[in-house]
Amino acid sequence: MPDFDWLFEPVAQLDESARVAAIARQNQLTKPPGSLGRLETIATDFAAWQGRERPALARIGLAVFAGDHGVAARGVSAFPQAVTAQMVANFAAGGAAVAVLAREAGASMAVVNLGTVTPTDAVPGVINHRLAPGTADFTQQPAMDSATLGAAMAAGAGQVEPGLSLFVGGEMGIANTTSAAAVFAALADLDGAATVGRGTGVDDAGLAAKRAAVDAGLARHRERWCSESPETAALAVLECLGGLEIAALVGAFIAAAQRAVPVLVDGFISSVAALAAVRLNAGVADWLIFGHRSAEAGHARVLEALGAKALLDLDMRLGEGSGAMIAIPVIRAALAVHAKMATFADARVCSND
Amino acid sequence: MPDFDWLFEPVAQLDESARVAAIARQNQLTKPPGSLGRLETIATDFAAWQGRERPALARIGLAVFAGDHGVAARGVSAFPQAVTAQMVANFAAGGAAVAVLAREAGASMAVVNLGTVTPTDAVPGVINHRLAPGTADFTQQPAMDSATLGAAMAAGAGQVEPGLSLFVGGEMGIANTTSAAAVFAALADLDGAATVGRGTGVDDAGLAAKRAAVDAGLARHRERWCSESPETAALAVLECLGGLEIAALVGAFIAAAQRAVPVLVDGFISSVAALAAVRLNAGVADWLIFGHRSAEAGHARVLEALGAKALLDLDMRLGEGSGAMIAIPVIRAALAVHAKMATFADARVCSND
Repeated sequence: MPDFDWLFEPVAQLDESARVAAIARQNQLTKPPGSLGRLETIATDFAAWQGRERPALARIGLAVFAGDHGVAARGVSAFPQAVTAQMVANFAAGGAAVAVLAREAGASMAVVNLGTVTPTDAVPGVINHRLAPGTADFTQQPAMDSATLGAAMAAGAGQVEPGLSLFVGGEMGIANTTSAAAVFAALADLDGAATVGRGTGVDDAGLAAKRAAVDAGLARHRERWCSESPETAALAVLECLGGLEIAALVGAFIAAAQRAVPVLVDGFISSVAALAAVRLNAGVADWLIFGHRSAEAGHARVLEALGAKALLDLDMRLGEGSGAMIAIPVIRAALAVHAKMATFADARVCSND
Repeated sequence: MPDFDWLFEPVAQLDESARVAAIARQNQLTKPPGSLGRLETIATDFAAWQGRERPALARIGLAVFAGDHGVAARGVSAFPQAVTAQMVANFAAGGAAVAVLAREAGASMAVVNLGTVTPTDAVPGVINHRLAPGTADFTQQPAMDSATLGAAMAAGAGQVEPGLSLFVGGEMGIANTTSAAAVFAALADLDGAATVGRGTGVDDAGLAAKRAAVDAGLARHRERWCSESPETAALAVLECLGGLEIAALVGAFIAAAQRAVPVLVDGFISSVAALAAVRLNAGVADWLIFGHRSAEAGHARVLEALGAKALLDLDMRLGEGSGAMIAIPVIRAALAVHAKMATFADARVCSND
């Protein structure tokens, strides 16, 4: 029996006095109060996370988790399953979008294989925690067993170093929008029609196949969680419908909140993992910031379920962590302007008091 | 009689073959087609502007134009008029939001005084083109004469160096949201209720005063432009209701488009200047990219009049060029991912063709 107890340990406390000090500073800066909008709340949130009036982004850790999905057999993706391992190699070689953007954003990237169909042991720069050759097809049986779920969550947690200024989780896995849609539908009591989108770009037939797969998964497994508490229900949902990389994200997000590391959440799949993490441990919500709103159909609804408003909306729908990487310079700018602007007194500018 | 003829000279041509090459490259990169959303169109637009498949941001020029407004006498701002020159000094000293953000974004900043009430000749780092001690109160008489308008537009144009990768215009002037609202109302045939917002944060009485001032300005001067062509109407509107810094922005935007320099437009005031520039010379529209949607009430409507969708929406409403500075790293990331990602062939990843 895997150890799930750590998931329920309390998250780190926010430093509300640092937040108050940062708000006081914001009100002395040479601008009308509130006129920097979300840049102001980013700065004051990071003050509470870092326990200081003038927070900064020193070390940003990005882990891209990869895994394959048995449900790919249902014709739910525009790409063949071999692409997952090929893209793992592309991440490690620095050619994928998230790899380019991570360099641009000053984030260090780990590439973690939780379970692709094709092994990647020979690929330089890949961390291999290959627990299985992908999940099972959840329309036929549970995606994974409880031990595998526990191992995937622990592997995710292992990627979060205490002392990071920010953690970002990315993901790759052909068919993983189908798995994420199923997990979301189960957690939010919705169906395939409400949660499925075109992912990498399936046609109408692919979209119908995705919806059917989600609904079949829900019908097959629903009794496993429908009478459980939110915490055990979330574990059952992840076991039945989840992905190895999604489970790793859930574990990483919970561990980050426990280790006082704020999490910048990417798009649809990462946000579904964040929702599962919050169901398992409600305090995790205090340590999340949402990078962008994805063009993937279900994302707006996931953000709504989390009560979250994403920083950016650039019609991106790639996943990998790519949208979150674009949000990093916005956060950096918010912290710079907070730390470095002159106050009314410094600059001898009349305030409107 | 000032020389306005240059305003109507054609803008530089876009390189559509470079755009086509960039689109072809986007479709070979290791991601589903279209999945990087607006990052893709940013890259292909810059390709057309720079005439090469892989554009880059080498030199970014920011000019912050300042001027005072006679209409401040109508009680339309939460801040005293002395703040304009104080903020000019704060820009030059590097303490204002836009100054911090320009450093962060790698933009070089010029601070140009077109006409504050208080002179700034003794302030190091300020370019003084002080044409008048502010405009006249447009509820009583035209804001400026034709010669001053021409000089302000020429001074703006003088800040746009050919060869820049990107030009950004910022502005500062107590009461300039009132002037911009009046200009917008005149250009779009609206009234104060439709175009006025709270600016730096006026209360309800201030808001009513702003609306009344805009409506009074429109009523007093409308006959000057109502039977003119779009071009001469725009000049009359700027003369009657504009600001020195707004006129400088208009001149700079037109000159940039003529010199093949794309313009990143900031918030409400800059967008109103962009609308005036497009009325004077329709080709300018091809050289504009909009950085953010301001929280200032009228901005969404100005963007609509321009058929523009801003990159960011962060509830900012400071002006100065600050919102545009936040958009620069997004543009930089878009160009980096376009230039540096691996293609399907490079990375030996199966495409979905």
